[in-house]
Amino acid sequence: MNDNSKPSSGNVIWHQGRTTNDARRHSLAQNPMTVWLTGLSGSGKSTVAYDLEYELIQRGYKAFVLDGDNVRHGLCRDLGFSAVERTENIRRVAEVARLMNDSGLVVISAFISPYERDREEARQVIGDSDYFEVHLSAPLSVCASRDPKGLYEKARQGRIPDFTGISAPYEIPSNPAIRLDTGELDRQKCIDLLLEKLIPVIRY
Amino acid sequence: MNDNSKPSSGNVIWHQGRTTNDARRHSLAQNPMTVWLTGLSGSGKSTVAYDLEYELIQRGYKAFVLDGDNVRHGLCRDLGFSAVERTENIRRVAEVARLMNDSGLVVISAFISPYERDREEARQVIGDSDYFEVHLSAPLSVCASRDPKGLYEKARQGRIPDFTGISAPYEIPSNPAIRLDTGELDRQKCIDLLLEKLIPVIRY
Repeated sequence: MNDNSKPSSGNVIWHQGRTTNDARRHSLAQNPMTVWLTGLSGSGKSTVAYDLEYELIQRGYKAFVLDGDNVRHGLCRDLGFSAVERTENIRRVAEVARLMNDSGLVVISAFISPYERDREEARQVIGDSDYFEVHLSAPLSVCASRDPKGLYEKARQGRIPDFTGISAPYEIPSNPAIRLDTGELDRQKCIDLLLEKLIPVIRY
Repeated sequence: MNDNSKPSSGNVIWHQGRTTNDARRHSLAQNPMTVWLTGLSGSGKSTVAYDLEYELIQRGYKAFVLDGDNVRHGLCRDLGFSAVERTENIRRVAEVARLMNDSGLVVISAFISPYERDREEARQVIGDSDYFEVHLSAPLSVCASRDPKGLYEKARQGRIPDFTGISAPYEIPSNPAIRLDTGELDRQKCIDLLLEKLIPVIRY
């Protein structure tokens, strides 16, 4: 498919300039979407994100995960975890997701994103039709009992300020595209339910 | 290629988790790269960027332009044009380019990026092997005489502060992958020369 020969006609349409989003959809054979995962620390956001990415790529879709690992240490490394900084973090993630959607990709974002107003701004930046909100709704007791990195314990001791669920609020999404109780459902079941809802909207 | 059936084995490798960059190269059939266009206002960065994107997509590559239009009004809308803000703008663009390269895309960035140290930081963020610097070297006199938006005229009148080439410096790249004198070469010739150098490094 890729070669470096010139277009056979020799008449390149120079004035056209910009590639349309429709051309990208066609080029990548999918409808771009941002799958916005939200939930408490320990609710399984990264696990679900990477499992979903893997399953989508297996099926021929072009997908990419934005999460703390690749955003918090790079684009947002100047930001902490206060309410104002969380808002700016979510704003930048939403802007990057929009750019990636414009490029044709399916984006999977995995951030706590505890504030309703921040998620609403993300929806507006990304565009309502490209924003697919997923609430990972495992209850606080379950998330805190998992606590693989000991963060909840540290937060309870006051050693982490502004920790969602302990010393900072988590505002439950009122109307997500899907809600998955990752405290009850197993990993495979979560991904199956998610794919069942998502594939019809990203299929070209 | 896209379907929503489950993997036939039924044994999804859950522990694998993350998709490797090699898998992405294979999935998109290209080597990701950031084509970093640098040059004065009026040197043709956006024109070259969109022409290049169009030609790459025609050839089956997956490419995307980052420029003032989609970055300055979104991700970087909180930033002005002082030296410090230009540095932060370039840093964010480089971080987004890196994420997009990680997703498998060829990125074409079109920013004046006048400071050598900022371009060097971009090279480091993106990674030396993925950074393809292109200097659009039309001289100031040519760029200023084009002046389609009247910006040089305004800058000379002191109505735009920190304007590159007039009231702020442009540091000429010492060792770009390619230098194109967009004051001498026509549009088609520029793209031909660029594709000739670029295709071999992005071909999978």
